[in-house]
Amino acid sequence: MRTVAVVGTGLIGTSVALAARRRGLTTYLLDRSSLAVGAAVALNAGVAGPPPEPVDLAVIAVPPAQLAPVLKEQQDLGLAHWYTDVSSVKARTRTAAEEAGCDLGRFVGGHPMAGSERSGPFAAAADLFQGRNWVLTPSRESDRHAVDLVLQLVALCGARPILMEEDDHDRAVALVSHAPHLVASVLSAQLESMEPGTARLAGQGLRDTTRVAGGSPGLWTDILGTNAVAVADILAGFSKDLDQVLDALRDIGADDPQRRRSGEHTLGELLSRGVAGQDRVPRRGPGRPGDGNGRVSVPVANHPEAVEQLFADVWNTGMHIVDLNVDHVPDEPFGRLDLTVDPEAADDLAAQLTKRGWAVLR
Amino acid sequence: MRTVAVVGTGLIGTSVALAARRRGLTTYLLDRSSLAVGAAVALNAGVAGPPPEPVDLAVIAVPPAQLAPVLKEQQDLGLAHWYTDVSSVKARTRTAAEEAGCDLGRFVGGHPMAGSERSGPFAAAADLFQGRNWVLTPSRESDRHAVDLVLQLVALCGARPILMEEDDHDRAVALVSHAPHLVASVLSAQLESMEPGTARLAGQGLRDTTRVAGGSPGLWTDILGTNAVAVADILAGFSKDLDQVLDALRDIGADDPQRRRSGEHTLGELLSRGVAGQDRVPRRGPGRPGDGNGRVSVPVANHPEAVEQLFADVWNTGMHIVDLNVDHVPDEPFGRLDLTVDPEAADDLAAQLTKRGWAVLR
Repeated sequence: MRTVAVVGTGLIGTSVALAARRRGLTTYLLDRSSLAVGAAVALNAGVAGPPPEPVDLAVIAVPPAQLAPVLKEQQDLGLAHWYTDVSSVKARTRTAAEEAGCDLGRFVGGHPMAGSERSGPFAAAADLFQGRNWVLTPSRESDRHAVDLVLQLVALCGARPILMEEDDHDRAVALVSHAPHLVASVLSAQLESMEPGTARLAGQGLRDTTRVAGGSPGLWTDILGTNAVAVADILAGFSKDLDQVLDALRDIGADDPQRRRSGEHTLGELLSRGVAGQDRVPRRGPGRPGDGNGRVSVPVANHPEAVEQLFADVWNTGMHIVDLNVDHVPDEPFGRLDLTVDPEAADDLAAQLTKRGWAVLR
Repeated sequence: MRTVAVVGTGLIGTSVALAARRRGLTTYLLDRSSLAVGAAVALNAGVAGPPPEPVDLAVIAVPPAQLAPVLKEQQDLGLAHWYTDVSSVKARTRTAAEEAGCDLGRFVGGHPMAGSERSGPFAAAADLFQGRNWVLTPSRESDRHAVDLVLQLVALCGARPILMEEDDHDRAVALVSHAPHLVASVLSAQLESMEPGTARLAGQGLRDTTRVAGGSPGLWTDILGTNAVAVADILAGFSKDLDQVLDALRDIGADDPQRRRSGEHTLGELLSRGVAGQDRVPRRGPGRPGDGNGRVSVPVANHPEAVEQLFADVWNTGMHIVDLNVDHVPDEPFGRLDLTVDPEAADDLAAQLTKRGWAVLR
């Protein structure tokens, strides 16, 4: 991969462009706002405007609701050979692209799990994706070459690719990102008319709990709207628990020992469930899924064709890869691909790759 | 102040003891759990057991619901000349202490605005309160000497004292701490049965939004229960907004362009209110209230009697001090007291203190 185009030079698009530039790729920047393109160019993220001939890969980095029209337009103009996106919602955006008549064989959906409450090109950073997960949702139509190129993009951004079904992805981000964002927004909305004397009592707890609510309302209306049903499902459960807690607080406030005890019991149970749930949130740091029993490592020459071949061979096993980590350093002759599958399937994967000529570490 | 007793060697109590020890005070440690006292002693926070004669100040660092019985018991035993507490709820705890027959002339309520999702003595740190606010709620009965000693304690912990009415304090912490804690707990409860594959998509946003929910359920049942009415008031507003957002999401999910537009409008408005509210949360760092126009600084000899006299003179002006910062270094001959009042009252305060013989900087 030598050339990349980024359509939409906001936080994510500009960060992808900066990462690509750092690895020496030629990067073209497009945005309907020339101000945003100008800012990205000023940050040395690439050159403004469409490429003279189709690039290898185009990254459509626009809000979810705009993916379909923008992808269609750029495919018609012949911007690139292969396409990906960065939308935080996958099923509905792909359906929309299909309905808009996009060529989905040349497209692989992607979602880098990185961001910021800040937005726009000036918040961008070449290392925004370093060590982060990057979900890929190839469909049955997706051409193998498209998948290979997107995996290369993920690797050069320093991220970890995760292959998922679109619906699984959308339900998962509704739980770990979209619903929490909306809860933080509703909580922050209660602070709208907070007096300075009250605000002075706020500490790190409130800062943390409300931080994500600083995100752009326009972008988040789009994201939440595109994943509305999954988010509503989670908020419905949240609302039910909240009402129960509200009743418990009123019982505690009432002047009746029995109601008080019952309220304290309900409150204590909810708080304990909260501790159990919070405990499931992964701690900071890259971490590894499971205990590593499902891991298969494959040393590979640090050469694009070798890496492409390995990706193709892995892809062709048809096995469900739950994690995939590319460990390679630009100037060293060898890197390593770490694959994680279900522990019971790992020996089978190792055998299949060995048969195809790879030196497999188990 | 030379001697301090800490009753309750959890996170807060042990941190107070460590700060007092660092400044050379003799510190006595009491807890109904000898394990907790043993841990605090092992951390060099002081000596175990009651003092041979009454200490200058006792810090009752127990959960809010236990303040009244513990204060009564220790006052009966003659633990100290003066008393303070660290409860995050002030009105109800003081009423309970009054009903229990405590001597409230010797008591000044306090609430250091610092904590951790970790609890117990091993989470303690001498600098836990450094640069943090510490609310004091002296009542009309509170003796001036009690206030002086508690202000000294706050200063030696490196914190900033804030004088407030009890009810104002309780409503404020319900908004900036208790309700957000409960919202984080209800959100975290939704993650209780989250699958590992889903958890892997969680990022810093979810970590921040749920962090406080890791706090001890027992302690937080006590805190929230003691401030139940104020917390319920805020959660009622939250719940109303949440239901509206839930309806909006369902409108967006419906197959009707008009309902969709209306839902997006509601959602966008709530997200914008969230941005406005989040913007009112103070940023990290000590900061200064207002633009400094209400600031009056008073150089003072770094000698306990001089400092006590200054506190007494400030106290006797009867003016509402919105901020108070003690800037002194142990081994230097002079320190400085920075007082902040309403900008329109600052000249008056400066004049009153000048009349009492202080060299005032305005």
